[in-house]
Amino acid sequence: MLNYERLRSVAANMRRCGLSQILVADDDSIFYLIGCRVKAQERCGVLLIREDEQVHAFMNELFCIPPVPGVIWHTYRDGEDVYGMIAAELHSGKVGFDKNWSSRHTISILEKREDIIPVLGSAPVDDARMRKDAKEQELLRDAGRINDLAIAYGLSHVAAAVTEAELAKQIDAFFLAHGGKQVGQYQVVCYGANAAKPHHIPDDTFLRSGDAVLIDLVCPINDYWCDMTRTVFYRQVSEQHRRVYEIVRCAQQAGIDFVRPGVRMSQIDAAVRQVIVDAGYGAAFITRTGHGIGLMVHEPPDVSTSCDVVAQEGMVFSIEPGIYLPGDMGVRIEDLVLVTADGCEVLTHYPKELQIIS
Amino acid sequence: MLNYERLRSVAANMRRCGLSQILVADDDSIFYLIGCRVKAQERCGVLLIREDEQVHAFMNELFCIPPVPGVIWHTYRDGEDVYGMIAAELHSGKVGFDKNWSSRHTISILEKREDIIPVLGSAPVDDARMRKDAKEQELLRDAGRINDLAIAYGLSHVAAAVTEAELAKQIDAFFLAHGGKQVGQYQVVCYGANAAKPHHIPDDTFLRSGDAVLIDLVCPINDYWCDMTRTVFYRQVSEQHRRVYEIVRCAQQAGIDFVRPGVRMSQIDAAVRQVIVDAGYGAAFITRTGHGIGLMVHEPPDVSTSCDVVAQEGMVFSIEPGIYLPGDMGVRIEDLVLVTADGCEVLTHYPKELQIIS
Repeated sequence: MLNYERLRSVAANMRRCGLSQILVADDDSIFYLIGCRVKAQERCGVLLIREDEQVHAFMNELFCIPPVPGVIWHTYRDGEDVYGMIAAELHSGKVGFDKNWSSRHTISILEKREDIIPVLGSAPVDDARMRKDAKEQELLRDAGRINDLAIAYGLSHVAAAVTEAELAKQIDAFFLAHGGKQVGQYQVVCYGANAAKPHHIPDDTFLRSGDAVLIDLVCPINDYWCDMTRTVFYRQVSEQHRRVYEIVRCAQQAGIDFVRPGVRMSQIDAAVRQVIVDAGYGAAFITRTGHGIGLMVHEPPDVSTSCDVVAQEGMVFSIEPGIYLPGDMGVRIEDLVLVTADGCEVLTHYPKELQIIS
Repeated sequence: MLNYERLRSVAANMRRCGLSQILVADDDSIFYLIGCRVKAQERCGVLLIREDEQVHAFMNELFCIPPVPGVIWHTYRDGEDVYGMIAAELHSGKVGFDKNWSSRHTISILEKREDIIPVLGSAPVDDARMRKDAKEQELLRDAGRINDLAIAYGLSHVAAAVTEAELAKQIDAFFLAHGGKQVGQYQVVCYGANAAKPHHIPDDTFLRSGDAVLIDLVCPINDYWCDMTRTVFYRQVSEQHRRVYEIVRCAQQAGIDFVRPGVRMSQIDAAVRQVIVDAGYGAAFITRTGHGIGLMVHEPPDVSTSCDVVAQEGMVFSIEPGIYLPGDMGVRIEDLVLVTADGCEVLTHYPKELQIIS
């Protein structure tokens, strides 16, 4: 079903960028606009959007997608000249092309029309997708609720006889049983020194007393991703580790407290980073503060030192500072926040007080 | 290390296509030419090749690739204008762009140079890659030998208590232990009616007496893929299934016997297909006859009804006819062949006489 409200927002962004026609090929972006998955792979499956909100679709009959009302639907077969069909609908001048579309498609269209000027054309949809509408917010809330359960499940299954990889697998099965989609080996489970590596892949490491246990869980639920990290300690915690934990917790809370419409992503990053720098661990916070999330697990905006995007109501992103001490341990705490009229709503709720499990 | 012989072959293909400059971004193609993996992901990592065999590389310092002797090496950092660097080295007129490079890169270069005409530019390297040189032939032979062992291992582990998915996992572990690289869930294991689906994903199906057991095993060994299929029967075989098996075996042998330099891929497909059509099962052979293989598991040429490519010495492709009977069973037999001066060498050797296992 064509989502007219989203289309209107894309068209407004097009006018703002001075783009009168764009080609949208990203699978998530097409789903965002017309509610179906194309999975075109190497074939051509694309939407042409005009600033007057007219939408054309060019789809191979093998995709088996029934025409969507409100969209001018063009079906082609293998061997038919789909690039000619697209070229015939383009106006002279600038055409915005999807940034990740294979050059083969872009060039095949350019070869048909010398009067076209190719420019980057993903921003109007990417910008619209940054601000989640009411339905998307509800789906992200739902996904966050499942993630609360998954974190509780994961932490309650930590045990001396369970390796990181085994726990990650159990958590994957939990997500699957709760509406999650199979995503392969995405769950991050780290024991002890492995927690110092932000992208550690769970392996056959066993737990030892005093280890940090870091679990960073992600999964798409009804197409929208959740993402949440908690760090706890096994059986005991040293004074230094306790202090590191509390620094990260304060930094993360400082970020959450800072989020409101009008602040830049770089300012949120700075508010978080300052707490860790002041505590003397600045060099150990080696990542950005967070990332946008929605139909993709990582999408704009970046919550980083260099991102100028201004927070607007409806944006959803993570706040996930960490302190990483190679060879020793790491702590990361991550929640998703939804920017509201005067602050933010936290979408993930598992408690953050220092927890020692056994 | 720059492979001068392969570069010479690419440059000759460029002259044949009328391309004086191409940009090569495909990870396998870069590896093919300079022997290192770039893994540029969303960043820009590309070779510029001129018809006079001059090669430039444009690489992000984060790729950590030391300059390759014989290549003019340009390193950039995040934030630096790599597209300007590339544009400065291009001549006016036609530039061949890699077919699968994200449009973002192509357009960012076009925006710098209005005097450039973008055209599809992958063919010179793709065509060179179709004909395997002596080193590649040896690597493909080695991979085939591992595949012989993997098929024998897989078939000897078929048992009533082992599901398709479990057997597939055991075979994956076997490949890993024999130099294979982790590739995820690529092994096809089908019992009974599942064998009627050419791309069946192994599931929790158990074996029943009289089932066809189809295993189609692939893995990259030292960067070069192997690919081989055998179908056997569990405990007993019906007369009809035996007949279907023998038809597929004859068709596959007809294909192998037909391969020699000078024949078209479509003629090889026809030679195979005719045997199955004559036996009355034409409608049940629902796939192409085969595909090229090398650094990718599927690469040119297609052995299909519509492929005009002429077999040349050094090409390697699969011959894999099948008869697929929905709801009942399927048989596929697949070997890789290397085109020789007067015929072909079969790279996979596991016996093809009808086998009943128990």
